[in-house]
Amino acid sequence: MNPTPTPTLPPPYPLQYEPLLRRALAEDLGRAGDVTTDAIVPPDAVAEARIVARRAGRVAGAPMAAAAFGLLDPRVMVTIEVPDGRDAAAGATIAWVRGPARAILSAERTALNLLGRLCGIATTTRDLVALVAPHGARVACTRKTTPTLRALEKYAVRAGGGANHRFGLDDAVLIKDNHIAVAGGVGPAIERVRRAVGHLVKVEVEVTDFAALDAALALGADAVLLDNMGVDALREAVVRVAGRAITEASGGITPATAAAVAATGVDLLSVGWLTHSAPALDVALDVVG
Amino acid sequence: MNPTPTPTLPPPYPLQYEPLLRRALAEDLGRAGDVTTDAIVPPDAVAEARIVARRAGRVAGAPMAAAAFGLLDPRVMVTIEVPDGRDAAAGATIAWVRGPARAILSAERTALNLLGRLCGIATTTRDLVALVAPHGARVACTRKTTPTLRALEKYAVRAGGGANHRFGLDDAVLIKDNHIAVAGGVGPAIERVRRAVGHLVKVEVEVTDFAALDAALALGADAVLLDNMGVDALREAVVRVAGRAITEASGGITPATAAAVAATGVDLLSVGWLTHSAPALDVALDVVG
Amino acid sequence: MNPTPTPTLPPPYPLQYEPLLRRALAEDLGRAGDVTTDAIVPPDAVAEARIVARRAGRVAGAPMAAAAFGLLDPRVMVTIEVPDGRDAAAGATIAWVRGPARAILSAERTALNLLGRLCGIATTTRDLVALVAPHGARVACTRKTTPTLRALEKYAVRAGGGANHRFGLDDAVLIKDNHIAVAGGVGPAIERVRRAVGHLVKVEVEVTDFAALDAALALGADAVLLDNMGVDALREAVVRVAGRAITEASGGITPATAAAVAATGVDLLSVGWLTHSAPALDVALDVVG
Amino acid sequence: MNPTPTPTLPPPYPLQYEPLLRRALAEDLGRAGDVTTDAIVPPDAVAEARIVARRAGRVAGAPMAAAAFGLLDPRVMVTIEVPDGRDAAAGATIAWVRGPARAILSAERTALNLLGRLCGIATTTRDLVALVAPHGARVACTRKTTPTLRALEKYAVRAGGGANHRFGLDDAVLIKDNHIAVAGGVGPAIERVRRAVGHLVKVEVEVTDFAALDAALALGADAVLLDNMGVDALREAVVRVAGRAITEASGGITPATAAAVAATGVDLLSVGWLTHSAPALDVALDVVG
Amino acid sequence: MNPTPTPTLPPPYPLQYEPLLRRALAEDLGRAGDVTTDAIVPPDAVAEARIVARRAGRVAGAPMAAAAFGLLDPRVMVTIEVPDGRDAAAGATIAWVRGPARAILSAERTALNLLGRLCGIATTTRDLVALVAPHGARVACTRKTTPTLRALEKYAVRAGGGANHRFGLDDAVLIKDNHIAVAGGVGPAIERVRRAVGHLVKVEVEVTDFAALDAALALGADAVLLDNMGVDALREAVVRVAGRAITEASGGITPATAAAVAATGVDLLSVGWLTHSAPALDVALDVVG
Amino acid sequence: MNPTPTPTLPPPYPLQYEPLLRRALAEDLGRAGDVTTDAIVPPDAVAEARIVARRAGRVAGAPMAAAAFGLLDPRVMVTIEVPDGRDAAAGATIAWVRGPARAILSAERTALNLLGRLCGIATTTRDLVALVAPHGARVACTRKTTPTLRALEKYAVRAGGGANHRFGLDDAVLIKDNHIAVAGGVGPAIERVRRAVGHLVKVEVEVTDFAALDAALALGADAVLLDNMGVDALREAVVRVAGRAITEASGGITPATAAAVAATGVDLLSVGWLTHSAPALDVALDVVG
Repeated sequence: MNPTPTPTLPPPYPLQYEPLLRRALAEDLGRAGDVTTDAIVPPDAVAEARIVARRAGRVAGAPMAAAAFGLLDPRVMVTIEVPDGRDAAAGATIAWVRGPARAILSAERTALNLLGRLCGIATTTRDLVALVAPHGARVACTRKTTPTLRALEKYAVRAGGGANHRFGLDDAVLIKDNHIAVAGGVGPAIERVRRAVGHLVKVEVEVTDFAALDAALALGADAVLLDNMGVDALREAVVRVAGRAITEASGGITPATAAAVAATGVDLLSVGWLTHSAPALDVALDVVG
Repeated sequence: MNPTPTPTLPPPYPLQYEPLLRRALAEDLGRAGDVTTDAIVPPDAVAEARIVARRAGRVAGAPMAAAAFGLLDPRVMVTIEVPDGRDAAAGATIAWVRGPARAILSAERTALNLLGRLCGIATTTRDLVALVAPHGARVACTRKTTPTLRALEKYAVRAGGGANHRFGLDDAVLIKDNHIAVAGGVGPAIERVRRAVGHLVKVEVEVTDFAALDAALALGADAVLLDNMGVDALREAVVRVAGRAITEASGGITPATAAAVAATGVDLLSVGWLTHSAPALDVALDVVG
Repeated sequence: MNPTPTPTLPPPYPLQYEPLLRRALAEDLGRAGDVTTDAIVPPDAVAEARIVARRAGRVAGAPMAAAAFGLLDPRVMVTIEVPDGRDAAAGATIAWVRGPARAILSAERTALNLLGRLCGIATTTRDLVALVAPHGARVACTRKTTPTLRALEKYAVRAGGGANHRFGLDDAVLIKDNHIAVAGGVGPAIERVRRAVGHLVKVEVEVTDFAALDAALALGADAVLLDNMGVDALREAVVRVAGRAITEASGGITPATAAAVAATGVDLLSVGWLTHSAPALDVALDVVG
Repeated sequence: MNPTPTPTLPPPYPLQYEPLLRRALAEDLGRAGDVTTDAIVPPDAVAEARIVARRAGRVAGAPMAAAAFGLLDPRVMVTIEVPDGRDAAAGATIAWVRGPARAILSAERTALNLLGRLCGIATTTRDLVALVAPHGARVACTRKTTPTLRALEKYAVRAGGGANHRFGLDDAVLIKDNHIAVAGGVGPAIERVRRAVGHLVKVEVEVTDFAALDAALALGADAVLLDNMGVDALREAVVRVAGRAITEASGGITPATAAAVAATGVDLLSVGWLTHSAPALDVALDVVG
Repeated sequence: MNPTPTPTLPPPYPLQYEPLLRRALAEDLGRAGDVTTDAIVPPDAVAEARIVARRAGRVAGAPMAAAAFGLLDPRVMVTIEVPDGRDAAAGATIAWVRGPARAILSAERTALNLLGRLCGIATTTRDLVALVAPHGARVACTRKTTPTLRALEKYAVRAGGGANHRFGLDDAVLIKDNHIAVAGGVGPAIERVRRAVGHLVKVEVEVTDFAALDAALALGADAVLLDNMGVDALREAVVRVAGRAITEASGGITPATAAAVAATGVDLLSVGWLTHSAPALDVALDVVG
Repeated sequence: MNPTPTPTLPPPYPLQYEPLLRRALAEDLGRAGDVTTDAIVPPDAVAEARIVARRAGRVAGAPMAAAAFGLLDPRVMVTIEVPDGRDAAAGATIAWVRGPARAILSAERTALNLLGRLCGIATTTRDLVALVAPHGARVACTRKTTPTLRALEKYAVRAGGGANHRFGLDDAVLIKDNHIAVAGGVGPAIERVRRAVGHLVKVEVEVTDFAALDAALALGADAVLLDNMGVDALREAVVRVAGRAITEASGGITPATAAAVAATGVDLLSVGWLTHSAPALDVALDVVG
């Protein structure tokens, strides 16, 4: 193998997202297909178009958008100008699309719907990262994602400079209040978990007060989710943890409060609205020839 | 059959959304399942929980959220308190969930992710409808939906009091600028379409000036999409149309401008952000016993 | 884009029919595959074959038949001689098939089964169109199609010169007797529909007498389905409609009666047997080298 | 186990045909569902309907039609009056359908499309069986079936009293002219096959002359397909075979010639049009309450 | 077609095994993909590797292993050195793999898991074949295969020189003790079967004593499964059968007893552990550049 | 929720394994179904059967086997006598199966194939655990599992008392020799990983000498995979680690060497043959009435 020094953001394999794209294209084509284009645009017409960012933002999803065209017609060629993880200025061309006009027009909406959503998440993440990075904190997403789009939305968060929390219920333990109640305390909950899960699974505990925090630390939790604590309490929690666990603040974080939360010294800010409420970036396809 | 007088909002059949729910549950469970709950909560534990609207909003998606629990364990019983299409106050219980605790906790996030998104769309729609209804106009969504969730998101728009535009590329004709350019004018474009599509397919033409509008009307377009016209131009367009076609305004409509656009007399306001950028409604599951 | 003057019949995208072809090939290959060919034909044997119309007919399905070979082995090359929508004489070569002999023999039956069925529908449609076109009427198919083959069978109807009625329950409204009974009359039925469906959905009403016809017209039905009316009644109905709605005759139409029905002045003859009972065209694959 | 004396025609398991039904229902419902029924029929309306044979015929597919309703709403109850394999008189009730009116109306077309097709195949088979049974011959279907419906169509042939030939390329060997040409004769072809296939796989050879027939018999073919032979040649072939192999006539068999072919003493008549060209039986759903 | 003299072991078509490979790759990649490789190996790194047999064995599955790499990245090129059905010495290179390093490392485990299992079955089969072939007997596998891998595992048995018994419940009849009990004897069971199944389906009867054997032979069973008989009884059974049916021994056959069983003159030894308990062959991927 | 003190082994949800079971049942039923049973066993026959362990072993997979019967016919009732994670004596009844005889016989092989495999893995694991547990070490499985059965096979390992290593490429980092070579050392490899993966992902490094071990420890690896080290080296490695990381031995572990490896003080023994080469447990279905 030929080692190279600077890894970039590696996209998922097409095998991972093509089933979603196929379903999305089929959803838009329905049974009768693109009746407007089929009636008007001759099968041998070719076109050149560009995918444009109508507003400035962070790009994510360009390879998936490109794949949407190719799944309708493999002769469509896409050249990406602004790769995932880079910023596009307002009006910038994210990608060129060239080939059979029918396929370009018929796949347009599917490609843009996915691209706009992923760019929206990446842009929202980027903006929040900018607020907290000066304090040495990172931004993390949650499992509050669109059903069946989780892997892509988490990828968009990475494109925005954010970190990924759990991808699902199975890749890390997160002990919440309901679990603690059933187990009869933080201690018994952690003990049950330690007996049950594999040695390569980290354990995080959600705590809302210092007693629970101390219990979690005493039992060797890998991370603590400091939920809905005020800034003062967070600062105190960071002191108590003293590096023994990863500290993660969650609950009520907004662009207005993020810097102050980051300044408490927590390692991460965990934010659900990165994925469940980020507005789409305005992207469009302009036919130029 | 026993006729009854007041049809309510009929939800899709489970056959239509269960495949999505199954994929979403599998996405969250991953390979190893809910390792936290499996380690802590005994298989025979039962729980009672309520799905709560943390903020006020219009409900959409309650039957789908209920189905998510049932797909994990058919013994989970869900009682819907606020049905789709009705408003929930902040703090209101949308539904009660009772049954095996494991399944309730493991399906929680999938159910809430879908419910929060659909309620968000319904609420955003409802609020926009309130602005334009006094002027006799309706609000319509577009095809700018989340890939593979279109039918559910359009259902949420209906739950918010909105109207549905095309569900896909195949259920109506929408002639846009690129089509007109290829055909060599509005007239040839409509003629090609009339020859090609079935007699139960409506034809809408996107126009940006009065010449194109007149051409579309002359050829009997069923609807005209008045794209990015100012309020004055819209008012003039409505006069020119004179009831011969459905008038639909699109482009640059915001909550701030919607009433003025509606006041021009257009039949519909077509708005992409109802589905691509509506923030999720904050919904949660509280275990109460 | 490069506009061209003469659009031909655009086929569906492979993405739309490849899943059906994959299932059909897997159905024929079963678990053990083509045991006869595998035992006898060496993997490196190549063959040249032609797909022949044993009887004269209208071609539909050639691209799908070609795709069947390619899905088994992408090295199989197919050259279509008679494209969809054109007539093949008895004995004519519809397509040449060249490549690995194993794949050609193993995909043969799947390709021919689909091609024969679609050509059969196209041919039956063509023959009926020939009877009614002199009277200015069109032929339309129904939803009486083979389960899961609807889009392809409707495409075959278009290849035969016919028009497509609804593709499903969702792309147009068709109010039938049962709906009218529940609603308590044609009027209330149309009103309920107008409130519920989008503005780009046409409304057709099935009527069997003039009272219902008048009610449907008064409420602005886009089309009327004149069901099981005699020729005299149809003629009278056309006069009453006077161009206010599309008129469509259905029920009991046969090749023997079609011309007389068309002569009544109706716009369309709607015929279920185009798709549910058209005999397959006899097509075969002859290995020539 | 409790042995019982008279096995009837056992239907496939729902697991085998439900995926097809789900695809077919989704095909008809599309994205927006049954917009007519949803607009007019209240969710709590119930109905009683009967599935009627408009013309006399042999029933096949009743359990599958019943399952279609149940897949939309499990509360729909179906009572089968004429089970598969029995004859229905014109006007006879094949089944009663009772339950939620919405689901009954929305599943109607899918259920009838499948039922009409399978009854059509069963009826066509039954009528051919009646012609040849007096001569001691049986009727067999071929692999010329509708893509993805093979198992159901072969089941319909059994319901009509016919026999099933191969279900696919893998459950028996059928050596045809192309195979013989590649192998360099009937003998080498059979030898290659014997080396390759399992001991529970029968070998049939398609022959068109007596030399090939004798070669096939000499090598122990289990069955011979006597293709496109005249009645005299068939009679001579049966004599030559002398019970050493199953004899099967194919090619050019019609209702007019079937009895004469059967009278030659062949064991089976193999007929493609049982499945590829049988007209559908006219079945309908009448709402009665 | 160009006839060639020496057919080799034809592999299944990719259409038949790619769905399994896609599911297997998705299973290993999970949601987040190969996080280790993605973090360390640059997207443009290329590598050359060889798939090595750590121990000597019979190869099966090389095309499927090769396809696994191609499904992640079509630029990966695989050159097979030891094709299926041939022996690999310990340390031998089964195949070379060249292309993008990321895809090679990410697909490695999936490719090897399948290859190791299939080679294990082929090797186990080969070794058993070597024991019984001198006696003129063949080795056959059973339906005791890994769920959803049956066709590939039976292919591996063929690669090992073994024969395939039934591929499923539908391609041959096998009457067992429970069937005989229900029918009330071997005779009635065979009669019921003859009436029900097609003429190209063979009938085998499982017998454990001579009375049942004689009954089966009298009714023309194509094969008899001599279950759990001792060597003396098998020898006697072969004499009684006298070539009228295929004889197959099953039950309690081990490498230690196989030669003695084969020496009784039975045609086949049927062995479940070829597929349900064969240890995997140790295969590995060594990166060499 | 009602807390209970003793959690048992929670099985996956049916939603997670039913797709596999459906594919497996369809694989065995093929197109024509269970032709033997369908011909002989009347549809209304009922049976009672028991699933028996022919040899002693640890049970795993009983709920999945039970579900196989229910998927063919929901009237089949299964009562599990020896639940997953418990030992069955030779001859013991693992479960009772009662209901329609057809479904019981047709699902038998699918149910047993899965059960036998999973019990085989559980039993092999149990026996290895017994050897190493006295030394305080645990047994872990690897990713060397059957394609598409990983989650079930890892569940069987847990039923045998073993621990689970990674479930896939995405739930933990495992840096191997190829990664280290590309990165240019253990240090750079770990650094790249730390930058890229989420904070809830553990990092394990495969090492074969003390230099690499020390580097991994210095950079805070969560676990070290001590590959192919001798017993003396392992003992020394455990001393060097001194509790700073989880220690895992792999390579060349057999039942004969396991105790000695465990005695070195490593935390885990990682063993591929638990899943890729465990012989199936001999399980059978005996009809008893």
